[in-house]
Amino acid sequence: MRLSRSHPRYASLRIRARLAAQAHTGLVAPEGLIAHGRGETFDYLLGERTTPSARAAERRAAEWIRSARLPVLSVNGNVAALAANEVARVARASPGLSVEVNLFHRTPARARAVANALRAAGVRNVLGVRPSARIPGLPSDRARVDRRGILAADLCIIPLEDGDRTRALRVLGKKVVSIDLNPLSRTSQEADLPIVDELRRALSNIADELERPGPPERTGRFARFDRRRALADALGQIGRNLKRAAAARPQPSAPPGRALRRRARGTGGRSRRTP
Amino acid sequence: MRLSRSHPRYASLRIRARLAAQAHTGLVAPEGLIAHGRGETFDYLLGERTTPSARAAERRAAEWIRSARLPVLSVNGNVAALAANEVARVARASPGLSVEVNLFHRTPARARAVANALRAAGVRNVLGVRPSARIPGLPSDRARVDRRGILAADLCIIPLEDGDRTRALRVLGKKVVSIDLNPLSRTSQEADLPIVDELRRALSNIADELERPGPPERTGRFARFDRRRALADALGQIGRNLKRAAAARPQPSAPPGRALRRRARGTGGRSRRTP
Repeated sequence: MRLSRSHPRYASLRIRARLAAQAHTGLVAPEGLIAHGRGETFDYLLGERTTPSARAAERRAAEWIRSARLPVLSVNGNVAALAANEVARVARASPGLSVEVNLFHRTPARARAVANALRAAGVRNVLGVRPSARIPGLPSDRARVDRRGILAADLCIIPLEDGDRTRALRVLGKKVVSIDLNPLSRTSQEADLPIVDELRRALSNIADELERPGPPERTGRFARFDRRRALADALGQIGRNLKRAAAARPQPSAPPGRALRRRARGTGGRSRRTP
Repeated sequence: MRLSRSHPRYASLRIRARLAAQAHTGLVAPEGLIAHGRGETFDYLLGERTTPSARAAERRAAEWIRSARLPVLSVNGNVAALAANEVARVARASPGLSVEVNLFHRTPARARAVANALRAAGVRNVLGVRPSARIPGLPSDRARVDRRGILAADLCIIPLEDGDRTRALRVLGKKVVSIDLNPLSRTSQEADLPIVDELRRALSNIADELERPGPPERTGRFARFDRRRALADALGQIGRNLKRAAAARPQPSAPPGRALRRRARGTGGRSRRTP
């Protein structure tokens, strides 16, 4: 199906088509497609744009990456399929950062496919294809990590991660930055710095910050972040968007999705005044 | 992965695993998996149970099936993968009802797979494998229907349908019952009787109603249904659940999904008093 650029949800539909196409290559697991759909709904409810609160979280995440002694960005099939270029940008902009393949539904073939997608996008050193360690407290398949990567890291950036693993990383004392559109997910609720934003927008914004000149510090100390407020902001935005959508009457001739977005954008300016 | 029956979201996770497994057989399209994920989020936000408002819509839908001269239940890959047994129950309980394969991403192989899944579940007569007519106003692939089925029907029951097709059916003067967890989708907004509930729960409840003795009328007249109120009820329920979730503090030791469900259930009794 051809998508028109003028479609109000063009970006979201294009991402969807891309992921569906990648499913045939084995890069994305069926469960990954379902997970993407869950995220789509939250992105739709959030207005399909980066909220001011998410933008602030992304700025702070970039600061944390600079501050970390060993930051590691974890990549699964969905992340590689959707945002290999953005991962490469973040890696280029932050020479101390490692990129590690980390799969929930791990097969050797999918691990290689993820690594290949990352290398094709320009990531030089990819860890995790042959895991060399385990995270305690997780079923064996899902615990496998790289000794020089996630196991040694003081900061893990985990886009589209599972709640159990997020928790296991925190139990090991690591700082965790999540990227997850669901503010109610266990990953968002467990993370030290939850970014509630679409993956590509989030990584692009983080890369923008990292590409600005600034001394890489590697202090191992992380500036404060109010995670409860970040999550409350996201839920509040969804609640306001829903209230507006409920107030709008069903209009068969005008798709309601369009109305929701127009209204959500209309207030974006207002809420930006109080970030 | 093994699922524990004690998991608070067991039913939802079991359905997810079933659909992912079916993806490998070709019955479900990759886009169907993504669509399922979108529905999962809405079901989660609705509390993963049939609301009193949805229950009332399901009762009325069963009445409409009795009243219709030619009711047709439209079945796509997701519906066949998730609810072939429930479709068969509805068909058995309503001898005048036809079942028609109707695919968005149509291939001859998938059409046959859907028909086979339905026959294996006990549906005797399956239309739509070799479409014999077109619905005007739709791109060719998506317009194909059966002359004796959807084209001739006065009532179409369309679970998990696309907004364009829903609209095209209404333009042809057919009454439309949708089953869609997203109260903001164009399908829900366009339908004459939108059921905002999970597919299997909805079809089971409709079958329960149809299995009760009652004269099949075939009057071609349909009792009134307040579609705006039904959609507003669903949005209201989501809004209340979100508000409660936002009020609950992030508690790393207790998954917030569990808290959301417990609280949603806690008010279920109250809202049932005013259906």
